[in-house]
Amino acid sequence: MKKHNFSAGPCILPQSVMQKASDAVINFNDLNLSLIEISHRSNDFVEVMENARSLSLELLGLKDKGYKSLFLQGGASMEFLMVAFNLLENKAAYLNTGTWSSKAIKEAKLLGELVEVGSSKDKNFNYIPKGYTIPSDADYFHCTSNNTIFGTQINEFPITEVPIVCDMSSDIFSRQLDFSRFDIIYAGAQKNMGPAGTTLVIIKEDILGKVSRTIPSMLDYQVHLSKDSMFNTPAVFPVYVSMLTLEWLKNLGGISEIEKINNKKAEILYSEIDRNPLFTGFVSDKENRSKMNATFNLVDNSLSNRFDQLWNEAGINGLSGHRSVGGYRASMYNALPLESVNILVDVMKNLEQKA
Amino acid sequence: MKKHNFSAGPCILPQSVMQKASDAVINFNDLNLSLIEISHRSNDFVEVMENARSLSLELLGLKDKGYKSLFLQGGASMEFLMVAFNLLENKAAYLNTGTWSSKAIKEAKLLGELVEVGSSKDKNFNYIPKGYTIPSDADYFHCTSNNTIFGTQINEFPITEVPIVCDMSSDIFSRQLDFSRFDIIYAGAQKNMGPAGTTLVIIKEDILGKVSRTIPSMLDYQVHLSKDSMFNTPAVFPVYVSMLTLEWLKNLGGISEIEKINNKKAEILYSEIDRNPLFTGFVSDKENRSKMNATFNLVDNSLSNRFDQLWNEAGINGLSGHRSVGGYRASMYNALPLESVNILVDVMKNLEQKA
Repeated sequence: MKKHNFSAGPCILPQSVMQKASDAVINFNDLNLSLIEISHRSNDFVEVMENARSLSLELLGLKDKGYKSLFLQGGASMEFLMVAFNLLENKAAYLNTGTWSSKAIKEAKLLGELVEVGSSKDKNFNYIPKGYTIPSDADYFHCTSNNTIFGTQINEFPITEVPIVCDMSSDIFSRQLDFSRFDIIYAGAQKNMGPAGTTLVIIKEDILGKVSRTIPSMLDYQVHLSKDSMFNTPAVFPVYVSMLTLEWLKNLGGISEIEKINNKKAEILYSEIDRNPLFTGFVSDKENRSKMNATFNLVDNSLSNRFDQLWNEAGINGLSGHRSVGGYRASMYNALPLESVNILVDVMKNLEQKA
Repeated sequence: MKKHNFSAGPCILPQSVMQKASDAVINFNDLNLSLIEISHRSNDFVEVMENARSLSLELLGLKDKGYKSLFLQGGASMEFLMVAFNLLENKAAYLNTGTWSSKAIKEAKLLGELVEVGSSKDKNFNYIPKGYTIPSDADYFHCTSNNTIFGTQINEFPITEVPIVCDMSSDIFSRQLDFSRFDIIYAGAQKNMGPAGTTLVIIKEDILGKVSRTIPSMLDYQVHLSKDSMFNTPAVFPVYVSMLTLEWLKNLGGISEIEKINNKKAEILYSEIDRNPLFTGFVSDKENRSKMNATFNLVDNSLSNRFDQLWNEAGINGLSGHRSVGGYRASMYNALPLESVNILVDVMKNLEQKA
């Protein structure tokens, strides 16, 4: 029985993508060679990289708007550092909405002055700060669009003259935004895009080249751009699977179509969390509940063994909450079928009836 | 027809490894989940990471000798930087034997004084410098054990009190050495270990913690070691396939067994290069010819079309030399069957008969 996979990441990818990826490991493009044994400089792989780069811009509506894309290594954690290396000359503004924001702040502090313009740390990050001011002399403003661990998501991004850098690791390609308001968008692949091991970085080119420091080659966006994301050997398999997932999304109708399904999935689950007296949502401001990661708790923890048994029996995987929040977390990334959410809701109702 | 894959990297891996990797993309460990959709914190993947780390030390004979291993992202190119960040306080000594050494030198120079103790740049790196002196006050000595592009390989490593750091990207696990003479060994996976996207780093722990700078988290070996190579999401698929390849090598009898086969393959090919009047080897000092990458040229370039046609017809892949050397390069990594070398030699003889 195929599982209902609510893992927070690495996470579910489309079945058709898995099948193509598995096939390519044996015989790629009918070359009688595996995808993972060919040169990354071969025409066949260069085409994969170029498709992946192009599709990412196309899906975000950023083609021919001064943006370029890269598939790098190191995850969002490496971008925490690279963003600061490439952009931070004097001062940067950061919004602190959770674990990943805090880590981004820690790394950037090594390279310049940081202003934490807002933080929800006082309430274990269960809300998104509002009404904060971004200093007009900041080199950039950094935020995390979706907080996987706490289950919050930014709906309104600030209006500012300062360049905006956004870590969209856990909600990229899940909802329509005016992506041209951002100057750098980065995302570890392992949520809505592909397997762990590659990181998408979208860069408005005119933002670069303004810092005075010498940037090490591997941390320099301009170096990677000048080599079309092939400065050194890329993570071939993760990039290929990301390309397949982006093709899948395009064929499905793009972000606007997947957003409708994502909205429906979130509505079904949050309705049940609010209706069912056995459960309570973790996030305090409902408008900033994440449509990707729903965090919730049992009102009465003595029911946890029974609930755990029920969802395990239903073939549900990856529902345990992060250790810093506890309770449960249902991650509903693009590839999670609506059916899986319905199964989870049935289990929650079932628990109510039996309690 | 399965190809005879002489690619320089990414390159051939064992067929049994490819099959297991392909299967795991559909259903891993009978979980009814794909390897690439499970949490990297799940027991199933933590076991993969720990096996891979442990096998790498075991195969190198470094268990219980004060060494730890890491599977990081960014390839050898990131290690060029990380080595300097973690070890370079005052001065470091580098041996320049080709493109990769030169790149390592360039990045390390950003962080301290560098002494190039020897270089073969004067002859387009077609030999390994000898008789150089390593300053006794250097923080470390850095070298590249095998030069993929030029086809040279170090046979004798210097006797020195200075810690030795070695980039073994293209010959790790291919030959027996006293690996305990090295303090850091690093290697991009995509030659003898696995697919592109992960980098093995072997570290003698007592070498760390001696520099005064603050090291960014992602560049700090101690940070990665403290988290058992899971400071952030690792490249799950590349690490898994590396583990499979290391298991394959262990079952085959380890490095001492594969070395015998590698010696045989190299002997067969180099004998033909030396015997066949149509060909000439690129490397000037025969004792430093690489057993992984044999570089050779046609004496008469007007035969190149005919030769290219012959090896293509024989199902040979990846024989073109690197642009900075020209001619041909036959990469004979661990997983390349002896049969493939025999086929290539037949093609070379065939050309001679027809010429």
